[in-house]
Amino acid sequence: MKEKLMEMLESRKDEMIEIRRHLHENPELSFKEVKTAQYILDFYKGKDVEIQSNVGNGYGIVVTIKGRKSGKNIGLRADFDALPIVEEANVPFKSKNEGVMHACGHDGHTAYLLVLADCLIQLKEEIPGTIKIIHQHAEEVPPGGAKSIVESGVLDDLDNVFGIHLLPLGPAGLVGYHAGFSFNGRAYMKLKVQGRGGHGSSPHLANDAIVAGAHFVTAAQTIISRRLSPFENGVITIGSFDGKGTFNVIKDSVELEGDIRYMTDETKEKIEHEIKRIAKGLEEEFGVTCELTYENDYPPLYNDPEITEKVAEYLKNANDKDIKEVKEFPPMAPSEDFAYYAKKFPSCFFYIACTPKGEKDPYFNHHPKFDIDEDALLVAAKAVGHVVCGYYELG
Amino acid sequence: MKEKLMEMLESRKDEMIEIRRHLHENPELSFKEVKTAQYILDFYKGKDVEIQSNVGNGYGIVVTIKGRKSGKNIGLRADFDALPIVEEANVPFKSKNEGVMHACGHDGHTAYLLVLADCLIQLKEEIPGTIKIIHQHAEEVPPGGAKSIVESGVLDDLDNVFGIHLLPLGPAGLVGYHAGFSFNGRAYMKLKVQGRGGHGSSPHLANDAIVAGAHFVTAAQTIISRRLSPFENGVITIGSFDGKGTFNVIKDSVELEGDIRYMTDETKEKIEHEIKRIAKGLEEEFGVTCELTYENDYPPLYNDPEITEKVAEYLKNANDKDIKEVKEFPPMAPSEDFAYYAKKFPSCFFYIACTPKGEKDPYFNHHPKFDIDEDALLVAAKAVGHVVCGYYELG
Amino acid sequence: MKEKLMEMLESRKDEMIEIRRHLHENPELSFKEVKTAQYILDFYKGKDVEIQSNVGNGYGIVVTIKGRKSGKNIGLRADFDALPIVEEANVPFKSKNEGVMHACGHDGHTAYLLVLADCLIQLKEEIPGTIKIIHQHAEEVPPGGAKSIVESGVLDDLDNVFGIHLLPLGPAGLVGYHAGFSFNGRAYMKLKVQGRGGHGSSPHLANDAIVAGAHFVTAAQTIISRRLSPFENGVITIGSFDGKGTFNVIKDSVELEGDIRYMTDETKEKIEHEIKRIAKGLEEEFGVTCELTYENDYPPLYNDPEITEKVAEYLKNANDKDIKEVKEFPPMAPSEDFAYYAKKFPSCFFYIACTPKGEKDPYFNHHPKFDIDEDALLVAAKAVGHVVCGYYELG
Amino acid sequence: MKEKLMEMLESRKDEMIEIRRHLHENPELSFKEVKTAQYILDFYKGKDVEIQSNVGNGYGIVVTIKGRKSGKNIGLRADFDALPIVEEANVPFKSKNEGVMHACGHDGHTAYLLVLADCLIQLKEEIPGTIKIIHQHAEEVPPGGAKSIVESGVLDDLDNVFGIHLLPLGPAGLVGYHAGFSFNGRAYMKLKVQGRGGHGSSPHLANDAIVAGAHFVTAAQTIISRRLSPFENGVITIGSFDGKGTFNVIKDSVELEGDIRYMTDETKEKIEHEIKRIAKGLEEEFGVTCELTYENDYPPLYNDPEITEKVAEYLKNANDKDIKEVKEFPPMAPSEDFAYYAKKFPSCFFYIACTPKGEKDPYFNHHPKFDIDEDALLVAAKAVGHVVCGYYELG
Repeated sequence: MKEKLMEMLESRKDEMIEIRRHLHENPELSFKEVKTAQYILDFYKGKDVEIQSNVGNGYGIVVTIKGRKSGKNIGLRADFDALPIVEEANVPFKSKNEGVMHACGHDGHTAYLLVLADCLIQLKEEIPGTIKIIHQHAEEVPPGGAKSIVESGVLDDLDNVFGIHLLPLGPAGLVGYHAGFSFNGRAYMKLKVQGRGGHGSSPHLANDAIVAGAHFVTAAQTIISRRLSPFENGVITIGSFDGKGTFNVIKDSVELEGDIRYMTDETKEKIEHEIKRIAKGLEEEFGVTCELTYENDYPPLYNDPEITEKVAEYLKNANDKDIKEVKEFPPMAPSEDFAYYAKKFPSCFFYIACTPKGEKDPYFNHHPKFDIDEDALLVAAKAVGHVVCGYYELG
Repeated sequence: MKEKLMEMLESRKDEMIEIRRHLHENPELSFKEVKTAQYILDFYKGKDVEIQSNVGNGYGIVVTIKGRKSGKNIGLRADFDALPIVEEANVPFKSKNEGVMHACGHDGHTAYLLVLADCLIQLKEEIPGTIKIIHQHAEEVPPGGAKSIVESGVLDDLDNVFGIHLLPLGPAGLVGYHAGFSFNGRAYMKLKVQGRGGHGSSPHLANDAIVAGAHFVTAAQTIISRRLSPFENGVITIGSFDGKGTFNVIKDSVELEGDIRYMTDETKEKIEHEIKRIAKGLEEEFGVTCELTYENDYPPLYNDPEITEKVAEYLKNANDKDIKEVKEFPPMAPSEDFAYYAKKFPSCFFYIACTPKGEKDPYFNHHPKFDIDEDALLVAAKAVGHVVCGYYELG
Repeated sequence: MKEKLMEMLESRKDEMIEIRRHLHENPELSFKEVKTAQYILDFYKGKDVEIQSNVGNGYGIVVTIKGRKSGKNIGLRADFDALPIVEEANVPFKSKNEGVMHACGHDGHTAYLLVLADCLIQLKEEIPGTIKIIHQHAEEVPPGGAKSIVESGVLDDLDNVFGIHLLPLGPAGLVGYHAGFSFNGRAYMKLKVQGRGGHGSSPHLANDAIVAGAHFVTAAQTIISRRLSPFENGVITIGSFDGKGTFNVIKDSVELEGDIRYMTDETKEKIEHEIKRIAKGLEEEFGVTCELTYENDYPPLYNDPEITEKVAEYLKNANDKDIKEVKEFPPMAPSEDFAYYAKKFPSCFFYIACTPKGEKDPYFNHHPKFDIDEDALLVAAKAVGHVVCGYYELG
Repeated sequence: MKEKLMEMLESRKDEMIEIRRHLHENPELSFKEVKTAQYILDFYKGKDVEIQSNVGNGYGIVVTIKGRKSGKNIGLRADFDALPIVEEANVPFKSKNEGVMHACGHDGHTAYLLVLADCLIQLKEEIPGTIKIIHQHAEEVPPGGAKSIVESGVLDDLDNVFGIHLLPLGPAGLVGYHAGFSFNGRAYMKLKVQGRGGHGSSPHLANDAIVAGAHFVTAAQTIISRRLSPFENGVITIGSFDGKGTFNVIKDSVELEGDIRYMTDETKEKIEHEIKRIAKGLEEEFGVTCELTYENDYPPLYNDPEITEKVAEYLKNANDKDIKEVKEFPPMAPSEDFAYYAKKFPSCFFYIACTPKGEKDPYFNHHPKFDIDEDALLVAAKAVGHVVCGYYELG
């Protein structure tokens, strides 16, 4: 079956590109992907599959392809939401939805998976198990779509889940992977430091919230430098210090917002614990009141080592002219809500290189000029196809 | 003459109140006091004085009252601009100019001085010298009006200048003074810290301006705690830390604005020197770029001890039922551009208490609910009148 | 009587110098002034006075001179202890007690007062009250001698106390004074920050006491810069940061010692309160244990304004060729346990200038090269003599 | 040959233990290993090998075993110095050299390698290449012995070097490895911050070195938290803050000493660059003088991935009852001067587990109670023996 599948995919490469361009022109923000979801549903119309829409907390779609017999079941996941970015890429199929852009490659994820799904539907009698195609909404904005889809129970019968991400790690044809912790987990914090305002010339009659806030920023650095194992990844970024005021008036309150990254649950808990401690200590030290909001959202993405080793093996042995290199990559700094699938099922999330041809220093995902080499779509389809065939031992 | 003057003032107390209320209802912002200036000019119309208008960098007015012979010349100064404050005081003559308010008492300063000037004009044949009435614009906003009036040269023939401020230091009838440095000097700083933005998860690819800015705030504290003599007044307030951004994006730049206070030139220079040094050190330490704007505006107000001692003496010996107490006060935290007169001429700037009757915890100047006991207007007029009489030895 | 007293003093100038030199050669540390006390007791042997020795917590001596009738009673105080300093002054009467030095002028204080006391004893029939000569031990080391002498009750019948200090403020002949708070109050703090040691390469397994201690130092600066009125004197000096260790071993604990200065009880309490707060906050923020010792010792020295004004008046009207100038001085940074007398009785502690002749940049008290112009001894004796005469209206 | 070698090693297990105990009883400090070196030289006396003594900057010994033909050449390295630690382990062969202890297992390294070397000498006719036994002095103290041995040139003909470390990672029988960066590189820093001393009450006349030093400690934290990739290991420990002084005297200078760890040259350079920058910025910010000593000593130890993979393979396929488990381990925090061999030759340094039997929470190397399960000596000898056999394909 493998050979057949690969031929089918090759012959539909242009269709993938067309779909991707259509989606690229019509991006929709997380949790608002009405038309995108409809487009996907339309694609499956009349096909011999079971379709569940509005899955989870948004427009999630799960398409069930039942094979010739019951056996092991897998999920293939692609996300389909876009970002609040004004596109600056100079492409003919530029976003028509001003201020919204498929700057993370989800258009490509959906495009390849639709075509691959269609091929698998046609070949389903050869598949000894059930494949669920997971078209996921809202990957970009916590709480995301993945968690709610997992919690909805529609995937409960799966054994494993696979997914890919288009990343400009090299030319189309390169496929990357990493076993173990691969994408950062994430938390969000907001700290309101409430002091007491006053006249700039009389600090003793006020309680300067800017001085206390600055102190928090400085103290928080020691969490990374002294509390975490040097071998463990951990980041605290205070991205916002909202303390705009009048130069000669002592500021009564400031609001800090921050982003926390970590690779293990231990680090996650340590950082949370320490930030809470510093906020409490700040109250004591500066006599201010601290209102701390702290929310852990996407967990670290853990690629099951056994499954990932198999994926690497299938791809290395693919003997496919379009899959030119299969290479281990180090863990990645961003976060991904695929982590929720991986937390429940032994899973593998791997990387499809998509650096535009001739580009030496490509724009990364989320950049207003982000673009892909569309050859990578076929690579994605084939790579996941090889994984499916390898998994079901379909020679 | 003294007795005559006091009687005249007493008889015109209601007029002072009326003028003050008119001005209070029609406040105008610094450098925009068109109608106020016209009102003052109208007041002097037809009187036997020389009038200079548009003096200095705004609507300043200098009225010259020539006495019976040439002798020692003095200036009497009152400021007439208002503040950008929405009045909250519950008075029948509330500001009609929404968002502008005479919250600093300049309406009262002008009211008493107009009436006093008129009386002095009538009595001028008894005065052995020239008195210049200085109706000053724009006290509230640097560079202020005083500096430019002094620089215009119209006051060059003066020997001394006197001025008062209405302050809620106690009941009407109390007059305060302080010899030596009495009001703070002031400087303004703006510091733009330019780092380099980046993704919250990858601090090593960015240069976090919030961390550097927080560091500046912390380091600046040591100027006060370790660089100044503990016996010297000095304040650095960073009133604005403009670092609002997105929680998960490393901030590329922040802008700090601050207010500096000092009582001596030595402290002024030390603080400026040290802030510049820290800004430069920050560049080195954090690899950021610092753009520092530093402007000294009003100098410390120095009351000439000899003149001030005399003022205190005249007032203590006034034997006037309306001047109930004459008391030394400590230096004041705010700044005043009367300081420019005092820098050129041995001068005395003293305080007329104006706490509203029955008020135990009065609103201070610049508060939206600031109000005065209008009895203080007569006290002001009489107090300055006594100073004039004492100065010219007019029994 | 005044004239007689002054003549007597003038004639005994050499004796004062001799006594001072003897004491200078034989300095003794605080609480160990055995020989000095004996020397003083010997001086009074056979004189018609009442003598109390071992007063208070050391070798304090109180000599009571009863005048011709009961009236107002005053104390005259001089301290007699020396400092643990190796003398570097090049004088023929250099300390013979290696490592101990009269570097604060107490030798001179005692010398002038012995001679003055002797003269007053001779003239006592003219004095309408009782004078107590207070030879005080242990001024240099908390808790000092003054507090215990006051608490002993032997001074309970006094109305006022006077004292002087030799200070290199100008040439002999200059006398200085300041009304109100004049010398700093003082507190001592010791903070042990207990973390947990560990291998330098593994901070997460330890708790770095140096990082926490550094943080304390930085946070403490904000007490001075933001908690105190800019018009109030306040100092926190962390003079010792004992954190010596091995470069690659995380330090388990550090010990900080500090010196606190203040001019008012309000500031004293504010600083103590804030330091305690920061120590507590440090525990929370850094998970360390803080052991804080905090001891207020000498209070601020408050010169009663009324008494001080009189002292200044007596001196200004002294019409004495040896008292060339009487001048107000600003408050002084050091601390003095004369403050305890001044806290109980309206008192005045004033300054006798003693800059060595020809010296432009004299060494200050406590310097190993400190020296005085011995002409100042007679000035001291005469100045205090004038105060006594003025006080008792002895023309 | 493999079988023969293993039998020989098994039969000499007791001898290894005996040698190790002898060395353990007679530990010598780095660069002072006179008797240890002599012991080793005595061991080889009369054997058919070439011996070089006093190699490098100390008592290094290189023993050359020439095989049956020229081919690929390898080095086997064991270090032999001890530590300045008072032994607290309760063993019958406790250190007789008070204050010196083989607390890092070098006694065991030398013991196994002597016996293995002797066996290889006996079997040398079967070895198609040359083996150099490197008995290295002074591993514990920078600059160490390795660098100088490498620089001496005596190893220039080698192709690869192997070494092991006894570590309490699990029971004897467990062998660990890691490809790539495996032990931290290290640097040492000393920073003298020179301010200006002064009286505790007058900070403005001094320049407080403790405040500046505390600031350095705080600022240095941001190097780890903001300058390094979160995926990279990096540590800065300021282990010594030598600022002991008198509580009421402003400290004129402090001396900080620190330990820096890193896994890559990039991190090494970044930390050095940033520390220098902060020291320079400190001068600007605080007006102090900074004297910085910065010395990189042992580089990170990089295990060649290809060679390491082979080592893992040889051991996994050893089929040896004494080698019970072969497992990958994460990188280690300490530093090792084996790094110098690994920098010049593709090398592998791996781990022989030696947790004493029944011990759940064993003392780690460098602890005064560190001890080993002596069964691990045979494991070490066999493991390295398997590597030699595998390398030369000696079945």
